[in-house]
Amino acid sequence: MKVAFAQLNYTIGDFEGNSAKIIAYIEKAKVEGADLVVFSELSVTGYYPHDLLEKKEFIQKAENAVANIAAFCHGIAAIIGAPRINQNEKGKQLFNAAFLLFNGEIQYIQDKTLLPTYDVFDEYRHFEPNRQFGLAQYKGEKFAITICEDLWDEQPTASEFGKDKLYQISPMEELAKLKPAFVVNISASPFSYNQEEWRKNVLINKAKKYKTPVLYINQVGAQTELIFDGGSVLIDGNGEVIKELKYFEEDFLIVDTRNIGEKQLQPEAGTIEKIHDALVLGIGDYFRKMGFTCATLGLSGGIDSAITVVLAVKALGAENVRVLLLPSKYSSNHSIEDAWQLAENLGIQYEIVKIQPAVDAFEAALKPIFGGTSPGVTEENIQARARGIYLMAISNKFGHILLNTTNKSESAVGYGTLYGDMNGGLAVLGDVYKTDIFKMARLINRDKEIIPENTIIKPPSAELRPDQKDTDSLPEYHDLDRMLFGYIEMNLSPKEIVDMGFDEKVVNRVIRMVNMNEYKRFQAAPILRISSKAFGFGRRMPLVAKY
Amino acid sequence: MKVAFAQLNYTIGDFEGNSAKIIAYIEKAKVEGADLVVFSELSVTGYYPHDLLEKKEFIQKAENAVANIAAFCHGIAAIIGAPRINQNEKGKQLFNAAFLLFNGEIQYIQDKTLLPTYDVFDEYRHFEPNRQFGLAQYKGEKFAITICEDLWDEQPTASEFGKDKLYQISPMEELAKLKPAFVVNISASPFSYNQEEWRKNVLINKAKKYKTPVLYINQVGAQTELIFDGGSVLIDGNGEVIKELKYFEEDFLIVDTRNIGEKQLQPEAGTIEKIHDALVLGIGDYFRKMGFTCATLGLSGGIDSAITVVLAVKALGAENVRVLLLPSKYSSNHSIEDAWQLAENLGIQYEIVKIQPAVDAFEAALKPIFGGTSPGVTEENIQARARGIYLMAISNKFGHILLNTTNKSESAVGYGTLYGDMNGGLAVLGDVYKTDIFKMARLINRDKEIIPENTIIKPPSAELRPDQKDTDSLPEYHDLDRMLFGYIEMNLSPKEIVDMGFDEKVVNRVIRMVNMNEYKRFQAAPILRISSKAFGFGRRMPLVAKY
Repeated sequence: MKVAFAQLNYTIGDFEGNSAKIIAYIEKAKVEGADLVVFSELSVTGYYPHDLLEKKEFIQKAENAVANIAAFCHGIAAIIGAPRINQNEKGKQLFNAAFLLFNGEIQYIQDKTLLPTYDVFDEYRHFEPNRQFGLAQYKGEKFAITICEDLWDEQPTASEFGKDKLYQISPMEELAKLKPAFVVNISASPFSYNQEEWRKNVLINKAKKYKTPVLYINQVGAQTELIFDGGSVLIDGNGEVIKELKYFEEDFLIVDTRNIGEKQLQPEAGTIEKIHDALVLGIGDYFRKMGFTCATLGLSGGIDSAITVVLAVKALGAENVRVLLLPSKYSSNHSIEDAWQLAENLGIQYEIVKIQPAVDAFEAALKPIFGGTSPGVTEENIQARARGIYLMAISNKFGHILLNTTNKSESAVGYGTLYGDMNGGLAVLGDVYKTDIFKMARLINRDKEIIPENTIIKPPSAELRPDQKDTDSLPEYHDLDRMLFGYIEMNLSPKEIVDMGFDEKVVNRVIRMVNMNEYKRFQAAPILRISSKAFGFGRRMPLVAKY
Repeated sequence: MKVAFAQLNYTIGDFEGNSAKIIAYIEKAKVEGADLVVFSELSVTGYYPHDLLEKKEFIQKAENAVANIAAFCHGIAAIIGAPRINQNEKGKQLFNAAFLLFNGEIQYIQDKTLLPTYDVFDEYRHFEPNRQFGLAQYKGEKFAITICEDLWDEQPTASEFGKDKLYQISPMEELAKLKPAFVVNISASPFSYNQEEWRKNVLINKAKKYKTPVLYINQVGAQTELIFDGGSVLIDGNGEVIKELKYFEEDFLIVDTRNIGEKQLQPEAGTIEKIHDALVLGIGDYFRKMGFTCATLGLSGGIDSAITVVLAVKALGAENVRVLLLPSKYSSNHSIEDAWQLAENLGIQYEIVKIQPAVDAFEAALKPIFGGTSPGVTEENIQARARGIYLMAISNKFGHILLNTTNKSESAVGYGTLYGDMNGGLAVLGDVYKTDIFKMARLINRDKEIIPENTIIKPPSAELRPDQKDTDSLPEYHDLDRMLFGYIEMNLSPKEIVDMGFDEKVVNRVIRMVNMNEYKRFQAAPILRISSKAFGFGRRMPLVAKY
């Protein structure tokens, strides 16, 4: 059977736009001779609609969209994903379903069995698990339809305390008994640089174990924090990846399941390159899908704002990025020069605003209240917050979205000012550790110097007091990031982190900083997720707790 | 059997404190002649530990605490709640368990069957459902142990599109076959003014249907957003509530299940009074459990900050509340006077800081960039953000927590400035509609005028431009709140809200405001939840979406 892989970028809740796109690709697949065209999980609604699924009107629109798309399926079959109402008396309101459409109608429905409810996934919040298995049939061929997690009854675990068999049922085990010619897996699997290999292996293992080709069709594009990377694959019955679609962009490919043909894989990319591409897509989709064009941010001369502005320019174009340079009396000359040079290199609009007069006004007004107290964090925060006001003023006046430049290391230990440099509509680097930020700077400068060398080599500093350096209050980033990875991504205990070769006092201080700054992260901007455990809705910690 | 109800306030993750409290109440129950003392769901950890449950160390500490508490159970039995590891090969890592302890050891374990995974509940994220049913036994009496949701296989739904039977199994149906003498339900059921009656009815219906007494032991106290109200009850086999423990405070009662005795109920309180009491508890526990003493906030002369400061004084004491009056050139004289009068009435420390010099500094610096644009929302936001800086400076300098004063109506339509008046560590009124705010003012002033009458009767205004009124950009609160309740609590469609008797254009505008302000609420302070649907982690909306 000739199967078309339609790896597309959907907008959540945009039934009109998503349907139009799906219909266009049904036509294209038909013209190009495909028998069946496959779209990804919840393609009609976009993944994941969250509590929009609790609105009757939303579900009705999804039902109408499915019926409307089915009407275009003549001389070709299509598999699309959408929620549907659970008509049984008991259980959750909805199923997460795959619809096989041909002859203008819904011909077969397969509901999702395994509902991921961990990390960023909340599917049991809305969906009832399927308990019945059957095969779909078209043009005399019988095949199985599965939905994403359905193939993940066995999975590796990122954390030390994870479990590799989260479910009681193996859908593939059930379906294999029915002898499908191949297994279609419609998916919405987000990118995470440290789980990517696993994902491919999970699919390979299933194909191998059941000697059945697996056709995996993933979504592409960013939905707020989650960045879906595409990379759809066809794996043959020996567990060999034979076809692979593009990463981080839409793609389309027709494959004959009886005559798969030559290997056709994507070029290997390095981890930092993938993260880079993921973030550019993440920024671009955030703006496009929100209906915004322009970004603003503050350039400090430091590396975080430098990387952020470069990614923004790649995502939106230099003409759509406008920055402020906001020096204070503690800003070093080279910082201002580095920021200026970077703006010049990128060809973006910039303005310089001195924050001192506003800071002085605050301090003067507070003097009678603060009395003889000595300047400290309070006064440092006033500077960061004054900058925040200027940037939000640009954002408000010109309708630009402020990009936040906080990195994951800072966010982890609370090294940032709430309502100050933590401001922004989107945190571009919030899931990227500082040590990876440096690597990304080298990648960006690979061909020519875009980020001034001085920005990369100077010791990181917030420049909120004279001669301040990050290492005054934090361990070296090389060590800090390893401790944080152990604590956040791997869920190690303090003792286990000490056993990695770190000083107990330092480890305890770092962990205490992570724990006591939940309150700041609670109010942080949404973070583009590129790891297996990002701050945000995939990591739910009680705010008020003792631990 | 003489059963002691121990309705206590736990701190999440405070194994030492929670254990000490539980042990003290085991001793007390023993001294007072009880055979069995019952604590609430996850009493050892506090409810709900969220992703702390993914840490091995956390689970080990819980296991140790259970063993330690068991050692104190001699001459008395106790039921406590704690997570335990699922030793089966398949399924989630943990069970949410009830432990029956006596003779110094764990004698019986009953795991939770129905795992609420909706609204603010995420239990299937961490727990495997139980599938086995048995009775506990002590002193020759056989009884059933259930955990909270286990009795909720049939439940009323708040939203129009909800389902009343969310589960495939009815634990009570299974347990009834074993003929228990009574059913213990250990619970962690948060307060919600519009679901309170349901909760009691769910329990009454079970007792009646199975002709079996139900002993319901709830947690009390606030855990960040969730406010557990206590109100534990004993319902006899006819479905009559015979005993009722206090609301919003710890309580303890011993009941003889063979000789229940006279009715002993709590006095009826009005809805606004309950909300009031819930919020006072919510503020108090937030500070106590975080280890903070003092609150700060800005008094504008308006009703929201007035109510907030009154509740803060009730929760923390007048000596622990310090406010700023932050007039601008648009503040009316009466506003300053009303704010001053309120501070005087409460006997709290206050200072007046004029924001104009700082605002002028920002506007001067921005003039070259803004050119000839006319002042608007940008300039209004600068005022709100300047106030935010002053308040955060007080918070930082003196270690006070800034209380946020935003109400639910404002929060819904985005009538507030991000990084300005949306600042704060805790949003006290974020789940209270403006119309209920007015009612609460009347309740507070019932015996004497604490909130100046003028604050209550004047038309609400943000005072960010001359003669501004909320109704310039919003419908009257009486109408607005009804539309919002329909949209947020009841999940009605725009058409259904129009059918309530509102103008279609106005309804569409209001709904559009709610939808497009998800981005602001994403970064809002945690909100004390008092309704069936608060903004925050119980309402998960995609940020980037079209709907």
